[in-house]
Amino acid sequence: MRRLILTISCPDRTGIVAAVTTFIAHHGGSVLEASQFADHVTGQFFQRIEIDAETINLDASGFGVEFGPLAAEYSLNWRLRDTEVPQKVVIMVSKQSHCLDDLLQRWRNKELECDIPLVISNHPDMRGLVEWHGIRYAEVPVTPENRQSAFDEVTHLIEEAQADVTVLARYMQIVPPEVCERYVGRIINIHHSFLPSFMGARPYHQAYERGVKIIGATCHYVTADLDAGPIIEQEVARIDHADTPVDLVRIGRDVERAALARGLRWHLEDRVLISGNRTIVFD
Amino acid sequence: MRRLILTISCPDRTGIVAAVTTFIAHHGGSVLEASQFADHVTGQFFQRIEIDAETINLDASGFGVEFGPLAAEYSLNWRLRDTEVPQKVVIMVSKQSHCLDDLLQRWRNKELECDIPLVISNHPDMRGLVEWHGIRYAEVPVTPENRQSAFDEVTHLIEEAQADVTVLARYMQIVPPEVCERYVGRIINIHHSFLPSFMGARPYHQAYERGVKIIGATCHYVTADLDAGPIIEQEVARIDHADTPVDLVRIGRDVERAALARGLRWHLEDRVLISGNRTIVFD
Amino acid sequence: MRRLILTISCPDRTGIVAAVTTFIAHHGGSVLEASQFADHVTGQFFQRIEIDAETINLDASGFGVEFGPLAAEYSLNWRLRDTEVPQKVVIMVSKQSHCLDDLLQRWRNKELECDIPLVISNHPDMRGLVEWHGIRYAEVPVTPENRQSAFDEVTHLIEEAQADVTVLARYMQIVPPEVCERYVGRIINIHHSFLPSFMGARPYHQAYERGVKIIGATCHYVTADLDAGPIIEQEVARIDHADTPVDLVRIGRDVERAALARGLRWHLEDRVLISGNRTIVFD
Amino acid sequence: MRRLILTISCPDRTGIVAAVTTFIAHHGGSVLEASQFADHVTGQFFQRIEIDAETINLDASGFGVEFGPLAAEYSLNWRLRDTEVPQKVVIMVSKQSHCLDDLLQRWRNKELECDIPLVISNHPDMRGLVEWHGIRYAEVPVTPENRQSAFDEVTHLIEEAQADVTVLARYMQIVPPEVCERYVGRIINIHHSFLPSFMGARPYHQAYERGVKIIGATCHYVTADLDAGPIIEQEVARIDHADTPVDLVRIGRDVERAALARGLRWHLEDRVLISGNRTIVFD
Repeated sequence: MRRLILTISCPDRTGIVAAVTTFIAHHGGSVLEASQFADHVTGQFFQRIEIDAETINLDASGFGVEFGPLAAEYSLNWRLRDTEVPQKVVIMVSKQSHCLDDLLQRWRNKELECDIPLVISNHPDMRGLVEWHGIRYAEVPVTPENRQSAFDEVTHLIEEAQADVTVLARYMQIVPPEVCERYVGRIINIHHSFLPSFMGARPYHQAYERGVKIIGATCHYVTADLDAGPIIEQEVARIDHADTPVDLVRIGRDVERAALARGLRWHLEDRVLISGNRTIVFD
Repeated sequence: MRRLILTISCPDRTGIVAAVTTFIAHHGGSVLEASQFADHVTGQFFQRIEIDAETINLDASGFGVEFGPLAAEYSLNWRLRDTEVPQKVVIMVSKQSHCLDDLLQRWRNKELECDIPLVISNHPDMRGLVEWHGIRYAEVPVTPENRQSAFDEVTHLIEEAQADVTVLARYMQIVPPEVCERYVGRIINIHHSFLPSFMGARPYHQAYERGVKIIGATCHYVTADLDAGPIIEQEVARIDHADTPVDLVRIGRDVERAALARGLRWHLEDRVLISGNRTIVFD
Repeated sequence: MRRLILTISCPDRTGIVAAVTTFIAHHGGSVLEASQFADHVTGQFFQRIEIDAETINLDASGFGVEFGPLAAEYSLNWRLRDTEVPQKVVIMVSKQSHCLDDLLQRWRNKELECDIPLVISNHPDMRGLVEWHGIRYAEVPVTPENRQSAFDEVTHLIEEAQADVTVLARYMQIVPPEVCERYVGRIINIHHSFLPSFMGARPYHQAYERGVKIIGATCHYVTADLDAGPIIEQEVARIDHADTPVDLVRIGRDVERAALARGLRWHLEDRVLISGNRTIVFD
Repeated sequence: MRRLILTISCPDRTGIVAAVTTFIAHHGGSVLEASQFADHVTGQFFQRIEIDAETINLDASGFGVEFGPLAAEYSLNWRLRDTEVPQKVVIMVSKQSHCLDDLLQRWRNKELECDIPLVISNHPDMRGLVEWHGIRYAEVPVTPENRQSAFDEVTHLIEEAQADVTVLARYMQIVPPEVCERYVGRIINIHHSFLPSFMGARPYHQAYERGVKIIGATCHYVTADLDAGPIIEQEVARIDHADTPVDLVRIGRDVERAALARGLRWHLEDRVLISGNRTIVFD
């Protein structure tokens, strides 16, 4: 079913919901799903509304024109998306394929509503799998010497693919700050620890050393501050004393797959709103 | 903070949210929290709104007068509750005390906002604990011969205590159908299985025999149809081959405590709406 | 690392562990991992021992000769497997691919130690995927008229592939009783409900109707008694009032994948011992 | 049922299990439950054996005499406990009672097999509850000025009570290093975060600031290095964007209760063995 998805953030104030929903009803819009959150700590208000596109007498551009005055009156930061236009996802990967595998099978099974025009990797390993799915594979090797030019090419490829969002599906290179800043809220990473525990390298080995009884993974937006961006989703799994770091890596794969798949799906359905370093997730 | 909690159910129709939120905004009401659900299967609409009682220029009775025409226009089934008036909870218990213990400690720690004027039991065992909490303890023995008069007395006690809700906290007697029907949506039971698995007696022994790997408990509204009322909450725990029925009973206690405590808290916060044999839970 | 895996079941009796471990130590065997369970309900004893194959001065056949007298003395039902010989897994599938996809990616990522010589399906849909993995794909359509001959062919294919275990990865046909009986403890099914809840058809719709708050899936050995065989593993996921049957199907896919993958891995590592209609899982 | 519980740690070596189990069988001991773990990272071996005390022809002291030579041969670090002698637990608490409440109700319901001779607090608040349970309550106020003498008194009270283990059930004072070192492996703390995340003060506020989606609690042995001792058990719970720090504190209470109750039960059943900064838990 074709839907218009309206997301809003603004300073909280009496009457916002009344104004927005009256506007939608006035134009005949039938609301399929609505969620809202008044953040009493920050004083901000957030809302997500799914409208049956068949019922409203406005298309996306007409909506903008009509909605403008109201948006101005309430200082709304808003976005409207028509689900008929699928979002474009670029996936970046290194040698470990489990997250890529998982995203591709979900996409093929229609669990993820999006187009995937491109996979970028610094290694050749995944070409066969990706091309079997009918997706373009771009190999961009990264070395200490060519980092600048490599990420220039990555950026060029992302632009060329007109990516709405880029997913680092266990991409084992650090993305340069200027790329992070260019795509604020539009690069999603899966980190293989329960952040903020075990930031940095080899988190499963750190977890083993510390003797934790539960491990996790974190799906988050990438910022220039490594492993510190807004968290979208986390998942955990129990381990025990007999699990070596190798076992943790294996168990962790399922945790990573789950957190990334959920986080990306919510992002693609416009369920994730960023508020400072926190996220509102209308799941 | 004092709040007015408005809960609504009605046939779904364009404009309901606009009408209700416009009404609240018109009377100055600041919305603290709002949740809604349009059930596309049944065509029913459900909403829960928490209003800051200090901001709205209506009290509970004034609200009713003003809200009447709108409610009639949209065929709203609605309820308004002022949190300043705590709800009254009567707890019924037999010999096993873990659920009672848990509810009493949460109540004493202010995790459950309610009054508990009375505990009814068919056994004397819990009198000391209950009275230590300053709560009246009524012992109403139930035998095959006196069931009718016993439950007449139970009903009388519930009425006398002006209970808003009665909780069967491992009360091991079957409540007569006429009592169930008298208090529709106002008796909450904790069943010691993951319903609909293992209905009836000795569910942990049934679970052991079947060799399941996860056990559960179910918090539900009581109906005349035993173990079949609308489910509010369920909780589960992993078990393994070494767990005997005795272990299942022990592990199950935590599961029962958790499901009942959450279910009751949601009920007391008007977060649970009944729709046929299903519940909407705005948690 | 190459290992010998010894699994034992027998009537419980003082001295069994001493006798078995003394035998292994006497032959120089270094024990990598050992688990045991004395079932006080049935009086049976179960043990699983992983031996470093490099340390023991017996190969699999020599072990049998030497171990024979001890096994007879203690009435041991035992099995020894050399991990150097991978087990052969045949997968059966219909149109839904998520479980197959998941098993294939785990197999390709070396999370499942086995050979997969063959996938059997009653539909042509998965041929491309399966053959891309270099695995033979046999299409055996099943109709009400040809059931007997179709399952004769299935049995023939399983025999030809020398399958150690056959996995029904959402194979939507009922396996005839004679096939179930032929492969006792060697056919694994994934059922899309938390058994024994919602046996039979369309369990997600049943779950929706009942209004449960948690759904599940069950990995079990197939017996002639449908959906009633020994349970290996179960997994669950929370749902809420807004989830339609379609959502339950989607959420359930992850639950099914997880339960099946774990159950199969444990089976392949000889961690699952059957005891009546229950399983001992040395995970 | 009266049991002897033998726990062992030693350098791993072929033949240990054979030697120990042969010794037990030789003395007629029937093994009720046995678990073992060969740590291939450290080369250490760990074992826990429950023996039916009625079947073995040795009492605890006789066992020591007979077992001595074998223990010496294999360099065993071992301990034998007779379950007929309940362990003594001293609980320390400040003003928050939820963990104390929980332990007391479990103890009263026979979920924790132990004696609780004493509760120590730096506040008077819990006296009524504790004394209602028939347990001595010692109030030892702690101020910046009297820390030395206060903890001298605490130590004196612990000695006087002949505590086998002391539980810090949300005791909000830092225990001096000399007390930690005196009771290595015998003080259990519940920390209100998913360690090593959010060490130090106000972890729920830290968790809120970081925007995590799951919170946790950690039950660990106390060492002089604050919040860094060997972890026994961890528990987690999901939170969402609407949960304020106050909500996190409330949700966290259940997480703390669960982790502490399990950790303490395992400790009391000699299921926890310490290995460096990690624990082996034979649950």
